[in-house]
Amino acid sequence: MKLATLKNDTRDGQLVVVSKDLQSAVAVTHIAPTMQYALDNWDTLSMHLQATYHALNIGQLDDVMAFDSSLCESPLPRAYQWADGSAYVNHVELVRKARGAELPPSFWTDPLMYQGGSDDFIGPNDDVLVGDESWGIDFEAEVAVVTGDVPMGVSALEAGNHIRLVMLVNDVSLRGLIPQELAKGFGFFQSKPASSFSPVAVTPDELGDAWQGFKVKHPLLSTLNGALFGKPDAGVDMTFDFGQLIAHAAKTRNLTAGAIIGSGTVSNKQGTDYGSAIEDGGVGYSCIAEVRMIETIRDGQPSTPFMKFGDRIRIEMLDEQGASVFGAIEQQIKEYP
Amino acid sequence: MKLATLKNDTRDGQLVVVSKDLQSAVAVTHIAPTMQYALDNWDTLSMHLQATYHALNIGQLDDVMAFDSSLCESPLPRAYQWADGSAYVNHVELVRKARGAELPPSFWTDPLMYQGGSDDFIGPNDDVLVGDESWGIDFEAEVAVVTGDVPMGVSALEAGNHIRLVMLVNDVSLRGLIPQELAKGFGFFQSKPASSFSPVAVTPDELGDAWQGFKVKHPLLSTLNGALFGKPDAGVDMTFDFGQLIAHAAKTRNLTAGAIIGSGTVSNKQGTDYGSAIEDGGVGYSCIAEVRMIETIRDGQPSTPFMKFGDRIRIEMLDEQGASVFGAIEQQIKEYP
Repeated sequence: MKLATLKNDTRDGQLVVVSKDLQSAVAVTHIAPTMQYALDNWDTLSMHLQATYHALNIGQLDDVMAFDSSLCESPLPRAYQWADGSAYVNHVELVRKARGAELPPSFWTDPLMYQGGSDDFIGPNDDVLVGDESWGIDFEAEVAVVTGDVPMGVSALEAGNHIRLVMLVNDVSLRGLIPQELAKGFGFFQSKPASSFSPVAVTPDELGDAWQGFKVKHPLLSTLNGALFGKPDAGVDMTFDFGQLIAHAAKTRNLTAGAIIGSGTVSNKQGTDYGSAIEDGGVGYSCIAEVRMIETIRDGQPSTPFMKFGDRIRIEMLDEQGASVFGAIEQQIKEYP
Repeated sequence: MKLATLKNDTRDGQLVVVSKDLQSAVAVTHIAPTMQYALDNWDTLSMHLQATYHALNIGQLDDVMAFDSSLCESPLPRAYQWADGSAYVNHVELVRKARGAELPPSFWTDPLMYQGGSDDFIGPNDDVLVGDESWGIDFEAEVAVVTGDVPMGVSALEAGNHIRLVMLVNDVSLRGLIPQELAKGFGFFQSKPASSFSPVAVTPDELGDAWQGFKVKHPLLSTLNGALFGKPDAGVDMTFDFGQLIAHAAKTRNLTAGAIIGSGTVSNKQGTDYGSAIEDGGVGYSCIAEVRMIETIRDGQPSTPFMKFGDRIRIEMLDEQGASVFGAIEQQIKEYP
């Protein structure tokens, strides 16, 4: 099943069921007015949404509209929980290496995760507004899952069964603000402004064979200003699967319906030390910072600039037939105010 | 105006208006079914809630119930944003001193803030469930404000005008998990489990003269297992007022209606290096960790234990007449599961 949220001048938007081919959509106000409402009542409502999805796909419904991702909010325009892991430990190792620090061995067994802010996500095709270009604007292409209610202390295996939906993320990062903020010891805050999510969130069964071991085995495509920047496979080099990430998040607390858990920047080593760029025949990267780290290790300093006002980023995932699974995050960086 | 949320087997509970003396309450379903709904529509609804409050206080309403804080959820049982500052820099300085580290001078001018999790707050009189006593269970008594919509980049002065409600917090902390978690560099996560808030949230005007410069000038009383542990004044030694804390949180993002911004552990220096305990004639402390830091500095090691299963903590604030402003957070630590 594929779900999206259309803008309608309310804070939570309008839940719609989207056809498998992302061509059409239908409002389901009689079942659930909003995505959060559907997640809050998933056990009783999801079968009705599923029935609508099947009917939509075989052309049995009236009142169908053309689906337009530019009219979408993020699937949850605001959420009660957004926690982002760093499951591709290669990415973390690279960041450390570039500043001459060793990766603690525990990083391979104990997930790294930060608590994100979730009250004001950006729409998938809306501008990313940033106050200062010098803050080091970067995208981070990731996969995320949305959970149902998850009890505190859940096991990693059990946790995977609480996954309701899968989507893509642009975890916008302000690199220039990170060192100073992390030095203060309390983690990210200003350096992780509002994130955005793919137009469409899908149930795991939609992924077919690509949903294996609570990972998504498809390349994640990041296109920067029209040029392919990365296509690493989200199912490869993911040290911690989504079950493990959820269990980590729930170790000392419950997670409630609609909690979003992110994978962290998708990154493949490709049998090399740090992977390699698209132009070098590699699968490239899911954020600019990784390229800059490699440049720093290789050349002593980075040469690829961070994003500037006017730059565009597109993040998408295609299935084996080349069809878009989640629709595309496609955004332009703009100056605020 | 005083507002609370009663448990009613829904995720967001039932909004009630509470009398000034905390003796009675009235449901306001016809105005706003939930606290979040009221905050989402504050500009149009608050005057109706205010009228109900006045009518309740002068005994003009029917269908009034006795107010019982044990039936309360936290005012927002779940919220979209919970960010907690460390505005009492003395507290931070003490923590650093105990481990032999200097406080960076910037800590006096640039607020320290961490992003909290907000999807599952604990009711003000509900048990705090913890998986392991050895995790170093501590309370942290704080003040928090709830905002309306706050635009990104707001000034500190302007930010204060977006404060809708004030309440108290028990920011439960698992001290034993903090060093390892902060060493990983991404801030708190498992070490900051679900927080709880006072039964009642009040509009700033309820504080009268005690609301000065976006600070609350009343002692904050923490009572541990029946003995007064701390009574520092929340208006004293607060280096950053709530306007500054909100502005810090909103530097690179919008905050939306219902965002909760905390003060951090309330702590007074009292003209000494680190304040002093109640039994030494001082105002005491708002968490156990501070006492342990002082013991570490003085004796080389801490002697006051963290909380154990069965321990009770009460957090409250009284006005000049000795009346409870927010009702009391009163909780027992219990083993989970």
